Amino acid sequence: MVLGPLSDQHFADRLVSAIIRKGTPALVGLDPRAQSLPPGMLASQSPHDIAAAYQKFCCEVIDVVAPLVAAIKPQAAFFEQLGPAGCTALAEVIRYGAAKQLLVIVDGKRNDIGTTAAAYADAYLGPGDSSPWGGDALTVSPYLGDDSITPFLSTAQARGAGIFVLVKTSNPGGGRFQDLVADGLPLYRHVARFVEELADQSKGATGYGSVGAVAGATYPEQLAELRFAMPHTWLLIPGYGAQGGTAADCAAAFDDAGLGAIVNSSRGITFAYERSQYSHLAGAHWQQAVEQATRDMIAEFRTHTSAGRLPSPSGN
Amino acid sequence: MVLGPLSDQHFADRLVSAIIRKGTPALVGLDPRAQSLPPGMLASQSPHDIAAAYQKFCCEVIDVVAPLVAAIKPQAAFFEQLGPAGCTALAEVIRYGAAKQLLVIVDGKRNDIGTTAAAYADAYLGPGDSSPWGGDALTVSPYLGDDSITPFLSTAQARGAGIFVLVKTSNPGGGRFQDLVADGLPLYRHVARFVEELADQSKGATGYGSVGAVAGATYPEQLAELRFAMPHTWLLIPGYGAQGGTAADCAAAFDDAGLGAIVNSSRGITFAYERSQYSHLAGAHWQQAVEQATRDMIAEFRTHTSAGRLPSPSGN
Repeated sequence: MVLGPLSDQHFADRLVSAIIRKGTPALVGLDPRAQSLPPGMLASQSPHDIAAAYQKFCCEVIDVVAPLVAAIKPQAAFFEQLGPAGCTALAEVIRYGAAKQLLVIVDGKRNDIGTTAAAYADAYLGPGDSSPWGGDALTVSPYLGDDSITPFLSTAQARGAGIFVLVKTSNPGGGRFQDLVADGLPLYRHVARFVEELADQSKGATGYGSVGAVAGATYPEQLAELRFAMPHTWLLIPGYGAQGGTAADCAAAFDDAGLGAIVNSSRGITFAYERSQYSHLAGAHWQQAVEQATRDMIAEFRTHTSAGRLPSPSGN
Repeated sequence: MVLGPLSDQHFADRLVSAIIRKGTPALVGLDPRAQSLPPGMLASQSPHDIAAAYQKFCCEVIDVVAPLVAAIKPQAAFFEQLGPAGCTALAEVIRYGAAKQLLVIVDGKRNDIGTTAAAYADAYLGPGDSSPWGGDALTVSPYLGDDSITPFLSTAQARGAGIFVLVKTSNPGGGRFQDLVADGLPLYRHVARFVEELADQSKGATGYGSVGAVAGATYPEQLAELRFAMPHTWLLIPGYGAQGGTAADCAAAFDDAGLGAIVNSSRGITFAYERSQYSHLAGAHWQQAVEQATRDMIAEFRTHTSAGRLPSPSGN
């Protein structure tokens, strides 16, 4: 794989650097749930104590996975569920992940129009001191149309950040609207066409743009179709693991160099100790379950996808 | 107008009660912006001070409009733009509006799948002590499909709350995907059909359901079409005022009793002192500009729409 010099001011360049350094497209989703936290972590059922426990749990997960993966994806909903105390915890988790040199993709599925979209972009996009939340990227929903997405791209480009626009989501009901066929193409392909235009316009040294697309592992044929139709668009793939997608299902989402896609696993990693193969690591050893599940996911992708062509870091 | 007994446990019933009590479908949007705040309100440009100013400003707007209108609609983006301090301010603004007997529609345009959608619903839906944010309703984006919307409806129904699903948005670029024609109908009509099914299933004593739809004043023909196609669906109408829509443009969105629609004005009311006809009320008299702009909007809707058939409360 030969790449030109990568910029630390371009999101896709930064993502590629981090993935090459770690040798894996694995992305760890942080979806904390009170009922699944390790024993002893929850002082009480008050929102304040749950928020404190989410922060502690997520930061300990980050400690385990930071040497292994390129990025984390906190899910805003579970933090917002706790009210303002949860929002404070989310900001701390993002800050902690960034301090550990992880790229942080905030999963907020935000969208709005005009200056309101610009406010969301200003809120979440921009690592370091350039935004109050400090995300490297944000997920964005496309229903509101082109002028709801371009304000996010402007801010992303100015700050070396990125966005991932929902294209083909992993849930069973996603097809209700996304698969409707207009002018010979399903809706998700119309969205994909617009996203690819923006990605092409914003591409960096790797050929990938500051705009990516969300496409679920639960639809392998569509992943292959989208990889072909969106050559400049990085794919963020949910639906692996707990939702049923396998590494083989994701194989077509990668380019020949093992790049072009990042694959999320949330509870399959963070709550690995609830899965039968790691249940011997429940309780005091829960971090070992997190580490082993992460290593197993990395190995599965190296075996079954072109991600095996990424350099293998020593120790992984 | 003859209605059966209205329930205080059903969102549309509660909305109708409040609208009849105030005699207007006017909805005041709270979209605070630092550069538009009245002089002297902003202590510094720190996020903490801006958040404090947003809270103070919005609460003072609420003091003015609470006797006049049924509901307010804070825009989450402008609060989130300030990081966690803004989230705390948003929660306080919602709490203050509820204490003033206003219905609070949180404009967050949230969406996600399965248990994540349920987490957003749990976060925002439920007045009083039943949710951490305490909203009476939340705006929801439909791209993720049917199983991304039904979790919101379950929580809404259990808590006497509501949701408004984006159908035909007010922005120029909204048509990019919403107007794509599949099976003889534009996408927004497919979304409308699903929303109407849910509204019919959840209807209360007024015939309107716990699920409403967002449809912009900037598309008057589509408003008329949607009113006809969605007889059980309350319409939340943005795009009036600053975006160009008039009361006459909204007329077809109402039923014969002056019900069925609620019309938002944000900066046209909160920052009325920036408009030429109210500029004499800038500075120390900014609250008078807010009051006058609200009364002018109410009068315009009573003149140009069937909302004139609502009882006229004394003093308005």
